[in-house]
Amino acid sequence: MRKISLIASLATFTALSPLAAQETEKAEYPSPNAIVDAAPASEWVKIAPSDLLVMDLAPDAEGNARRVVIQLMPPPFSQGWIRNIRKLAAVQWWDGTSVNRVQDNYVVQWGDAGYDNPESGETEQKALPEGLETVPESEYLSKLTGIDGEKSNAHNSDLTTGTTEVYRGDPYGSALFGLGWPLGSGNQSLWPVHCYGAVGVGRNYSPDTGSGAELYTVIGHAPRHLDRNIAVVGRVIEGIEHLSSLPRGKGQLGFYEDAGKRVPISSIRLASELPATKQLHFEYLDTEGKAFAKYADARANRRDPFFIVPAGGADICNIPVPVRRVSGE
Amino acid sequence: MRKISLIASLATFTALSPLAAQETEKAEYPSPNAIVDAAPASEWVKIAPSDLLVMDLAPDAEGNARRVVIQLMPPPFSQGWIRNIRKLAAVQWWDGTSVNRVQDNYVVQWGDAGYDNPESGETEQKALPEGLETVPESEYLSKLTGIDGEKSNAHNSDLTTGTTEVYRGDPYGSALFGLGWPLGSGNQSLWPVHCYGAVGVGRNYSPDTGSGAELYTVIGHAPRHLDRNIAVVGRVIEGIEHLSSLPRGKGQLGFYEDAGKRVPISSIRLASELPATKQLHFEYLDTEGKAFAKYADARANRRDPFFIVPAGGADICNIPVPVRRVSGE
Repeated sequence: MRKISLIASLATFTALSPLAAQETEKAEYPSPNAIVDAAPASEWVKIAPSDLLVMDLAPDAEGNARRVVIQLMPPPFSQGWIRNIRKLAAVQWWDGTSVNRVQDNYVVQWGDAGYDNPESGETEQKALPEGLETVPESEYLSKLTGIDGEKSNAHNSDLTTGTTEVYRGDPYGSALFGLGWPLGSGNQSLWPVHCYGAVGVGRNYSPDTGSGAELYTVIGHAPRHLDRNIAVVGRVIEGIEHLSSLPRGKGQLGFYEDAGKRVPISSIRLASELPATKQLHFEYLDTEGKAFAKYADARANRRDPFFIVPAGGADICNIPVPVRRVSGE
Repeated sequence: MRKISLIASLATFTALSPLAAQETEKAEYPSPNAIVDAAPASEWVKIAPSDLLVMDLAPDAEGNARRVVIQLMPPPFSQGWIRNIRKLAAVQWWDGTSVNRVQDNYVVQWGDAGYDNPESGETEQKALPEGLETVPESEYLSKLTGIDGEKSNAHNSDLTTGTTEVYRGDPYGSALFGLGWPLGSGNQSLWPVHCYGAVGVGRNYSPDTGSGAELYTVIGHAPRHLDRNIAVVGRVIEGIEHLSSLPRGKGQLGFYEDAGKRVPISSIRLASELPATKQLHFEYLDTEGKAFAKYADARANRRDPFFIVPAGGADICNIPVPVRRVSGE
């Protein structure tokens, strides 16, 4: 028995399937999802396997696999931390570490929980591999002129004129889409923003910027005050429910006080290092394309049948960039 | 062993408690939480027990109680639906119904899941009590001049001058705080907005507006496109983790396909109808007071030690109105 409609009471519509509801849509006002489904293949961009980070948690209590797939950001954003993350994955550093923190409406955080040595009374940390970079705070920002080398002018033009009008008045200054990502902008700079599912790098007090060994993802309302204060390195594109539905930690900041509640991480790998038979393929909708512009407009002005008043605008984090899994070639 | 700092790596600071971190704060730049903790008693407003809806879910797998407390909105907002909700609670209509839908980064929804009658092949719904109001769509908005009767001028003044500057440029038009709530505004009207934890009324297609028997709460990024399209009747002020951490439904729109996954609702009551020994007491920080203005400014411009760049603004849903539980008189 299927239930339908966006926020429907179950009383009258239980017999009507979601598909049937879509079919009754006025053709001139397709839903955002319908626009994405109709986007031509030419507007989908493949994500390189070296930009996919695959995290396998221990199976859940019922034995179900729990895989979380993260897309890493493209240049020029956060590349120092991303190089560190690739190194950490290559040496399988995260295997045997755990998810240690789940704070409601904020973040899930994973990495090394430390080991309380009963003899010394000290908390011992897992050693990091040699050769990780110490990335300066200046790397939280990217200069507009530095984007994509030779193509910078074209990209700058796209980035600054694209679909910006849709989200008039970003409360955090200015925001736009570029290279497949939501970005903040100002003072001739761009930076990644903390939307739902964004993956960032835990750090200590400034000037520390974190190595990339300690990561978190956003599981609540976009904490945009973290923008430019912490490195964003990617976004969860599949399996975030394995993190967002974890029990909230009862310690300070949502850390699990009971170590038994931590969720073991079986492995974290770049997709490019998985065996050929286990490759994953994803693509995102080109944020400079026509379909994306139409999709963003529809997100900002819902006119599909359930809605009676279009909003007239949208928060950039309420226009998630469409990403889909595809079969390999 | 406690771990500290907002998004800290665990490497260096495990020995320093969160309290110690607060103590090192520069006095002139207290954190938002420190501002709230220091607010005078005169700026806290009691919430009437008749405005508290108490939902007890069946205990979890480990036998732990799961209580969710909802604050209902004050006049002039959504009062037709709220009268229905008070009636439904009074006749204990929800007892034995369930949480039926959990959609990641969107909503948790509860009410009558219906009963598939094997004889008729029909889905039968639980009968609603007599006398529920059919509320018109015009009630999604409240006229600015209609606020709080005689005091409307004073309130209008507060509402429109209050702390609006903090969240320059709301992408959805205009937003402000009033009467303890985040509100949208425009065209001489005000309306409640869908922030994290907002509670709304499920409905079918327009002109249906829902009765209030089917409710949902937001567990992800604020879906502000629902503003003015669905009635918001309140917000979860305690226990949202019992809803937000539920397993996501695998059916369309996050409905549980397997009825066994539904979470039984033991009871929903107004706090005013609970026995004297079981009363709950909550209060919220006056949104027209000085402490709130300082808090909102600090949320928009974090200057406490972890931060290096203040945002210069904040999304209205990133300034949650402080609510606290207090002991009774």
